[in-house]
Amino acid sequence: MKPNFTLRLRVFNLNCWGIPYLSKHRADRVKRLGDFLNMESFDLALLEEVWSEQDFQDLRQKLLPTYPAAHYFRSGIIGSGLCVFSKHPIQEFTQHVFTLNGYPYMIHHGDWFCGKAVGLLVLHLSGLVLNAYVTHLHAEYNRQKDVYLAHRVAQAWELAQFIQCVSLGLTGEVGWGPGTEDHTSKKADMVLLCGDLNLHPKDLGCRLLKEWTGLCDAYLETRDFKGSEEGCTMVPENCYVNRRELEQFPLGIRIDYVLYKAVSGLYISCKTFKTTTGHDPHSGTPLSDHEALMATLCVRHSPPQHTSSPSHGPAERSALISVLREAWTELDQGMAQALWWATITGYVIGLGLLLLALLCALAVGGGIREVVILLWTPSVGLVLGAGAVYLFHVQEAKGLCRARAELQHVLGRAREAQDLSPESQPALQPGRQEGDRAEEQ
Amino acid sequence: MKPNFTLRLRVFNLNCWGIPYLSKHRADRVKRLGDFLNMESFDLALLEEVWSEQDFQDLRQKLLPTYPAAHYFRSGIIGSGLCVFSKHPIQEFTQHVFTLNGYPYMIHHGDWFCGKAVGLLVLHLSGLVLNAYVTHLHAEYNRQKDVYLAHRVAQAWELAQFIQCVSLGLTGEVGWGPGTEDHTSKKADMVLLCGDLNLHPKDLGCRLLKEWTGLCDAYLETRDFKGSEEGCTMVPENCYVNRRELEQFPLGIRIDYVLYKAVSGLYISCKTFKTTTGHDPHSGTPLSDHEALMATLCVRHSPPQHTSSPSHGPAERSALISVLREAWTELDQGMAQALWWATITGYVIGLGLLLLALLCALAVGGGIREVVILLWTPSVGLVLGAGAVYLFHVQEAKGLCRARAELQHVLGRAREAQDLSPESQPALQPGRQEGDRAEEQ
Repeated sequence: MKPNFTLRLRVFNLNCWGIPYLSKHRADRVKRLGDFLNMESFDLALLEEVWSEQDFQDLRQKLLPTYPAAHYFRSGIIGSGLCVFSKHPIQEFTQHVFTLNGYPYMIHHGDWFCGKAVGLLVLHLSGLVLNAYVTHLHAEYNRQKDVYLAHRVAQAWELAQFIQCVSLGLTGEVGWGPGTEDHTSKKADMVLLCGDLNLHPKDLGCRLLKEWTGLCDAYLETRDFKGSEEGCTMVPENCYVNRRELEQFPLGIRIDYVLYKAVSGLYISCKTFKTTTGHDPHSGTPLSDHEALMATLCVRHSPPQHTSSPSHGPAERSALISVLREAWTELDQGMAQALWWATITGYVIGLGLLLLALLCALAVGGGIREVVILLWTPSVGLVLGAGAVYLFHVQEAKGLCRARAELQHVLGRAREAQDLSPESQPALQPGRQEGDRAEEQ
Repeated sequence: MKPNFTLRLRVFNLNCWGIPYLSKHRADRVKRLGDFLNMESFDLALLEEVWSEQDFQDLRQKLLPTYPAAHYFRSGIIGSGLCVFSKHPIQEFTQHVFTLNGYPYMIHHGDWFCGKAVGLLVLHLSGLVLNAYVTHLHAEYNRQKDVYLAHRVAQAWELAQFIQCVSLGLTGEVGWGPGTEDHTSKKADMVLLCGDLNLHPKDLGCRLLKEWTGLCDAYLETRDFKGSEEGCTMVPENCYVNRRELEQFPLGIRIDYVLYKAVSGLYISCKTFKTTTGHDPHSGTPLSDHEALMATLCVRHSPPQHTSSPSHGPAERSALISVLREAWTELDQGMAQALWWATITGYVIGLGLLLLALLCALAVGGGIREVVILLWTPSVGLVLGAGAVYLFHVQEAKGLCRARAELQHVLGRAREAQDLSPESQPALQPGRQEGDRAEEQ
């Protein structure tokens, strides 16, 4: 790598709203998306909600000359909806499916059936290793009463842990622990995360992800932004957007992101950042109900005034501790809720079994035969159905408990680091109860 | 680290056979295991099949003075059964739950309900980073007609990919690709994998895991082995073992492993390796139906005659290609099987719907009322049940397809490397068909 080396990386991200039979003008939009991607020739195009594999294959065929490499991330029953087209060869790819992803009985929401995931691509660009992630978290259907909040926080944590684990080193970047000085955990030169997080910038999950990974938000970092007001990625101007859903947000909402980080010795800046504004890039019908994001990133040697990782002074540490604590509380509440559902369904199973026993007694005693015949199968159905829901919530509680244990461990270590640092802040001490309750099981 | 530095690591592994209500003498065995671990004071004790969290808590309480750090990996409905006790502080931990893990309707086998997984611990020992993995793959119930073979191969691949991804670098150790020379992928100094793989040493999954990760088998590497014949970990001398299951293998089988690897600049040797021999370590009743493994590993600076990673000459490369191809074929067959089941259940759903329509017609036409009442609910049950099985197999096919795509990509790259190498072997060319069929989707 030469001293005055500069790598320019043009990235495209779009939630394509590609639900077969349900999304309007799907075939036309996919066609126009293909034309646009071919014309623009980005380095990397990361797409979400490409639910139909045929759409991916059609795009792949069309984009082959410009983007010779592509991958479709398969998971769950429907699929993750994630895919990627790359101008550069893909060295490796893998994926991580989120443990928690809504409820199978919420069929009308359908997230559970998708197997939401994070996909990872490893690219080699001018001798540097780029780990590019694409993801799509659980949708938010009711912001006032969000039953999926704990799941989305758990997904944000799993996403952050996956990135930390694969690209940043589980113990490498947080500035505590004896291993930090070894720098054995350097794993990639650059990390890029694109996708629909279904999280507003100030939402817990978004803060957790950014604080724990140190990823920078391209929209906030760039000096050259063109696009929708406040960088919103769902705007009322878009004819496919349900305006009633944006009633609380007259400008729209920002839930799609381009996030990045240079791991060491490098410095990444976002030269330009663009979004579409409710129309397609040429002011026609929009490409999707979400806006497309287009970022130009510049990778250089780290100038002396920039450290490659954010500093971990007392302010950063206490911001991290605060967000970890908030997430811990959310997961704890989610766990209580899951266990409550498991208990309720446990009672229903008991009731169903009692009913079956009663019916057996009636049948043996030669009671009203028609009643027995009528009630027998629904009772069996009740027991089996409640049994399935019970098992699901037990599994949900286990998943939340696992994420909470990981958070608790990290929280404990962050506090140790804070206590050891000369500037330790006694003001934060009252919040210790969770971390102390069960240090590690 | 001093030039003549040596790190000694004593490791214990046991599949504890801790099924509540079913495993014989569980409480007594757990008690004796705790006493033994306390007495021996290993650096790390990795346990599988600790299905009861209470057993873990009891052990934790007992082992606290000798092993201050511990973790129980929660997943699935029952749990992964994995836990670990460590003399050294645990820096970080995380886990990966396998995508495929048997069938929910095979209730008598129960693996699906466990959420089988691989757990990871990061430890810092004398300034070195140790990534210790513990795992337990799907059981083998019938070696002659193994319906879980594709799932176990997929699990072995996911396990290998997880280790490669987190500890070794997705592109770091295989010796191809432009990024290899960067060594950016150095992530841990030492990797340790212990667990019950439910794979014999020559089984496809075991070879795939070893070839792809380069992990060394402690039993094969040591010069000082004491224990059961051929290092078997399920032996007929063990009073808890069902002798009929070992009919084909008079000496027993070796399915539990201690595997390790030094990542760079270091050299690990296995000084001693011991197994129990059907009794507890003091010749009493055994601690489990599996034998315990005890290894003493020595970590040193890499002497000049040892390279830290296995060489990737033509022989190694063609062995890797051969095992990748074999795994690809197995997953392909598994996928065909999954799709066959999805088709069959699809027909059953159709049949059920037809029956329901017929019953509706009968009811409307005032037909035999009792028949309608009797058949209505079972028909609904049939449609719902077959629907669930259909969705499960669609998901299974997606999971197998994903693993197959990853294998195919790796296979393609291995072949490219082989073709580019001066010693390329034309003899291997006929086997190309799978890799070429659909280079990457």
